[in-house]
Amino acid sequence: MECTQEKSEKKLLIDVDCGTDDAQAIMMAIASPNVTILGITCVGGNTDLDNVCTNVLRVLKLCDRLDIPVFRGAETAILGQNIHASYFHGKDGLGDVPDASAPGLELIQKEHAVDAMKRFASEYPGQISLVATGPLTNLALAVRMDPTFPHKLNSLYIMGGNMESRGNTTAVGEFNFLADPEAAYIVLNDYLCTTYIATWEFSCRHKLSWDWYDKWINMGTEKSDFIKKIYAHSLQYSRSEKEEKAIVDGPGFVSCDSYAMAAAIDGSIVTKVIECAVTVELSGKFTRGMMVLDLIDELKKKNKVFVINGCDMEKFVLLMESAVK
Amino acid sequence: MECTQEKSEKKLLIDVDCGTDDAQAIMMAIASPNVTILGITCVGGNTDLDNVCTNVLRVLKLCDRLDIPVFRGAETAILGQNIHASYFHGKDGLGDVPDASAPGLELIQKEHAVDAMKRFASEYPGQISLVATGPLTNLALAVRMDPTFPHKLNSLYIMGGNMESRGNTTAVGEFNFLADPEAAYIVLNDYLCTTYIATWEFSCRHKLSWDWYDKWINMGTEKSDFIKKIYAHSLQYSRSEKEEKAIVDGPGFVSCDSYAMAAAIDGSIVTKVIECAVTVELSGKFTRGMMVLDLIDELKKKNKVFVINGCDMEKFVLLMESAVK
Amino acid sequence: MECTQEKSEKKLLIDVDCGTDDAQAIMMAIASPNVTILGITCVGGNTDLDNVCTNVLRVLKLCDRLDIPVFRGAETAILGQNIHASYFHGKDGLGDVPDASAPGLELIQKEHAVDAMKRFASEYPGQISLVATGPLTNLALAVRMDPTFPHKLNSLYIMGGNMESRGNTTAVGEFNFLADPEAAYIVLNDYLCTTYIATWEFSCRHKLSWDWYDKWINMGTEKSDFIKKIYAHSLQYSRSEKEEKAIVDGPGFVSCDSYAMAAAIDGSIVTKVIECAVTVELSGKFTRGMMVLDLIDELKKKNKVFVINGCDMEKFVLLMESAVK
Amino acid sequence: MECTQEKSEKKLLIDVDCGTDDAQAIMMAIASPNVTILGITCVGGNTDLDNVCTNVLRVLKLCDRLDIPVFRGAETAILGQNIHASYFHGKDGLGDVPDASAPGLELIQKEHAVDAMKRFASEYPGQISLVATGPLTNLALAVRMDPTFPHKLNSLYIMGGNMESRGNTTAVGEFNFLADPEAAYIVLNDYLCTTYIATWEFSCRHKLSWDWYDKWINMGTEKSDFIKKIYAHSLQYSRSEKEEKAIVDGPGFVSCDSYAMAAAIDGSIVTKVIECAVTVELSGKFTRGMMVLDLIDELKKKNKVFVINGCDMEKFVLLMESAVK
Repeated sequence: MECTQEKSEKKLLIDVDCGTDDAQAIMMAIASPNVTILGITCVGGNTDLDNVCTNVLRVLKLCDRLDIPVFRGAETAILGQNIHASYFHGKDGLGDVPDASAPGLELIQKEHAVDAMKRFASEYPGQISLVATGPLTNLALAVRMDPTFPHKLNSLYIMGGNMESRGNTTAVGEFNFLADPEAAYIVLNDYLCTTYIATWEFSCRHKLSWDWYDKWINMGTEKSDFIKKIYAHSLQYSRSEKEEKAIVDGPGFVSCDSYAMAAAIDGSIVTKVIECAVTVELSGKFTRGMMVLDLIDELKKKNKVFVINGCDMEKFVLLMESAVK
Repeated sequence: MECTQEKSEKKLLIDVDCGTDDAQAIMMAIASPNVTILGITCVGGNTDLDNVCTNVLRVLKLCDRLDIPVFRGAETAILGQNIHASYFHGKDGLGDVPDASAPGLELIQKEHAVDAMKRFASEYPGQISLVATGPLTNLALAVRMDPTFPHKLNSLYIMGGNMESRGNTTAVGEFNFLADPEAAYIVLNDYLCTTYIATWEFSCRHKLSWDWYDKWINMGTEKSDFIKKIYAHSLQYSRSEKEEKAIVDGPGFVSCDSYAMAAAIDGSIVTKVIECAVTVELSGKFTRGMMVLDLIDELKKKNKVFVINGCDMEKFVLLMESAVK
Repeated sequence: MECTQEKSEKKLLIDVDCGTDDAQAIMMAIASPNVTILGITCVGGNTDLDNVCTNVLRVLKLCDRLDIPVFRGAETAILGQNIHASYFHGKDGLGDVPDASAPGLELIQKEHAVDAMKRFASEYPGQISLVATGPLTNLALAVRMDPTFPHKLNSLYIMGGNMESRGNTTAVGEFNFLADPEAAYIVLNDYLCTTYIATWEFSCRHKLSWDWYDKWINMGTEKSDFIKKIYAHSLQYSRSEKEEKAIVDGPGFVSCDSYAMAAAIDGSIVTKVIECAVTVELSGKFTRGMMVLDLIDELKKKNKVFVINGCDMEKFVLLMESAVK
Repeated sequence: MECTQEKSEKKLLIDVDCGTDDAQAIMMAIASPNVTILGITCVGGNTDLDNVCTNVLRVLKLCDRLDIPVFRGAETAILGQNIHASYFHGKDGLGDVPDASAPGLELIQKEHAVDAMKRFASEYPGQISLVATGPLTNLALAVRMDPTFPHKLNSLYIMGGNMESRGNTTAVGEFNFLADPEAAYIVLNDYLCTTYIATWEFSCRHKLSWDWYDKWINMGTEKSDFIKKIYAHSLQYSRSEKEEKAIVDGPGFVSCDSYAMAAAIDGSIVTKVIECAVTVELSGKFTRGMMVLDLIDELKKKNKVFVINGCDMEKFVLLMESAVK
């Protein structure tokens, strides 16, 4: 199925667990002329919530956009647990290259992320594209606190889940969904707005070559220098034997969160989708957190999502490049 | 283990899914001279959330206490499902004896129940006894929205769960916990304040005789008339063969929610407790929602609760009687 | 419910994971004049299968009954795992007091335990009382290999499971059921013959005093000396703080397997039963292996069992005493 | 990974739940000159066990090979349940075109399938290729009855499971594994012999065109007429909208069981494999029965299997054609 979406002004609300690829996705959004970022909400995930907040502020400062309000959300998953991905993103979530002049947490808004989400949705009903690149805890809390919240959105773009039982964290579990399976389950059930999902396998299948990557981080701009610095840590991991096993379809640079963001910025980047009902396994011993695509309509769920299955790589590369200029 | 608690002024916050026994528990609190009710928060459970709100207002009007603020909370369980107990409490949750002059929902506060809970806890740090007689959804959302919330409470009294795998809704599932197992799990993990739990088996073992009940509802007061009216429906059920199987330890009148409330009002009513770690099964096929007592310290959980195991019945009866005077 | 059973000649088939209390149960059967033991089948459990076989031979030699055929059955649980109880029964399952003159494994029959079970049932249709005091693996295999096997039995006596979610191995898991939950599930579903279950809680509630125990092991017979020796190890454990937490209803001597055996030998020992459908939780995180009593007929299972709930202690003590004379 | 295997004489033991594609697979084996079929063991699956036995006899009669011994195995899955696939294979498992002159069940051997499997393995240690095209119940029972059984095999070929969470029976469940998840789990853990698995997705990706199919069933031989007749029922289903959703990668004729059989007959047909540890989810709500490929070595399982991922289609077609000549 082909799908298109006009390239008009977009109002984005961005929910992140700001690791390296979230940082990049935010930079991509900031670089896009047709995008207004209403706010950035933070959730514990790749790293702990304080780090997430700091990392977002560092990115905004780099881009000279500290005017974008940043909100603190859920520290832990719905059930209270936490898994981090410091093996990849570094202990601080941005490659452990601390910046002494990073903005302080006093710049974080006093309003809770979930309250801000609800407020923005009421202020801009039907206009917001919500881009979620971390565990879906804030989104789950938002719909539970206000069941009308999803209806007020224009659309939802999620980086998370898997479509062919390929896992990057457990054998069949993708990090964002595994970090909060209950939240993913809630969002996939209760967000009836138009929803696009960029899965782990999709991201891997649309990776960029290491050659491209090397040119990209060596463009010599302040932003490409930043990317180069924060990515050094994860690169070692990406090129390790273990990670190469997890990465579907051969080696290369996979900037997961950037695909969901790119789709939100320019819908025409999505060239193929699978339209189907999806859910998340909550109780499996091996499969907890796995996204289930119901291609045979077993679950009789009315609500279908668009699982992204094709990408205009030229356009995507342009967005990636503009992000670091 | 014996435990006592002084009988000084108590500040109660009451979270209900107002069916018949919640109504009674509220009346008990209102009748208690040493109690200040800060507010009543509503959650979907025995009946749907609108009915719960209406039912609370009906009880407050009956008691001439419409000054107590009532707040609307979660409509559904954390995962989004809903089970009601209309077979027992009636479709409207209060025995299907509608009151044409019931107060309208416009009397419900605009503030969300969870926001009110957070606010009260900040206004009265360390002073609030939270009494929860429905599914624990609002409490779970409160701690997820604000992890410091439980620390600001004085104590928590829960009606819910089971201690010997006796169920009243499934074979081993008690209604309140089964209605939202994830919420119960979250609360039992994350509420580190002093916590008392009045289980289904405990409530059953401290039931009152039908003789006592008949005198009680025929005291001829406006309040006893109200109880008589709203209980007529559930009584048929209570005395049915099916329910008699569910009720532990022989026939009689079991007003579940009243025990947790009584314990909150007067700690000396609790004459015996089991102090242990507890949790809730989330993934069992037959046991989902069952409370697990870890009497052999398998789970190595630091946090222990008091599972109530004995009750001063004389004092309890006095509180029950004062409620309808 | 009261139940009686005549005291005529009984044909027993005994399935054991021979630890200390299995040994005792076998001695009780051997000492009973009205009992013919057709054979003893062995299953991995308290200790590994080789030890189980050796232990049974040691008991038979002690009782001068090496004419009773002993069969080797399943080494592991249905799913392939193994848990042992060496902390209680010792590494060798009989208190780690090795006997240099123990009979060798060459005395074990060549026929597989499950084949022998099927053969005996065909030879004595409707006449056999099967007493199972270990994990139910052999019984599960027997019915899967031959679906008609259970119908050929007279009755089944099981030591295993729990009735009030009190566990001795996990928080809510009894050893025999936990050691092979799938087998317990299969047997409780597919053995439609008259079935009595002596649970952990029942056994604990009918424990014997340590005073009685001290006299019993000091009767000065060869058999009481044997019991004294093999029990020394488990005694330390029984009187430890940890085990005292697991034992329901205060300290004392709990010889679990002896109750099921006593009930098989003399039905009048059972003074009270709960007649209900039962099943076993297979998928719970905390509750895997827990027996579920369906007292509210949720599962609509036709097949009911007798969960033993009362015991004629005088008769039981007499059987215990005769076992060591 | 490429893998080859010499084309010498093969001793096959075939375990089937004889539906239409099992029938075909048996015919393929019979037609292969380098193959000796030691026996065919039956298991309940596509249809009930009596039908399975009859269907095997019908195929053997058609091929004039009633000399091959046929054995009756497990009627139900390990846990006792049964799911059939009559929507596809017809109520009788062979398209509901009964044959009045079908051989009677008295031709079935008296020996139990599992006993026969154990006996053959002892008679031909290291020489047998076991081909399993139904639920794995008999194989699971064999290893539990005799833990040394798998070590005596040369190799194992399984049709079953899925590799990319594509299901044909539930959203992510393939029929053979879903019909007995515990058996699949046991076999994948305990069969340490060389194991090849032809999954649902693999079978679908190597389907044959409907054009080829039409020529094939119209070759005018007695055998092609038989296939044409028994397949008429399933064809309607195969070409239905629902089934087309389940079939991976576009329409066509998928003869699942034939791939595992072809691989057993001629190893060079397998052109690509994924070598990895695998297991089966037993407790998931949506994913029960799903095969899990542990491509990131999460489970630290030593035992690896070969998940077939490429097929020499020319050779495969030749085998398919020879089967009906």
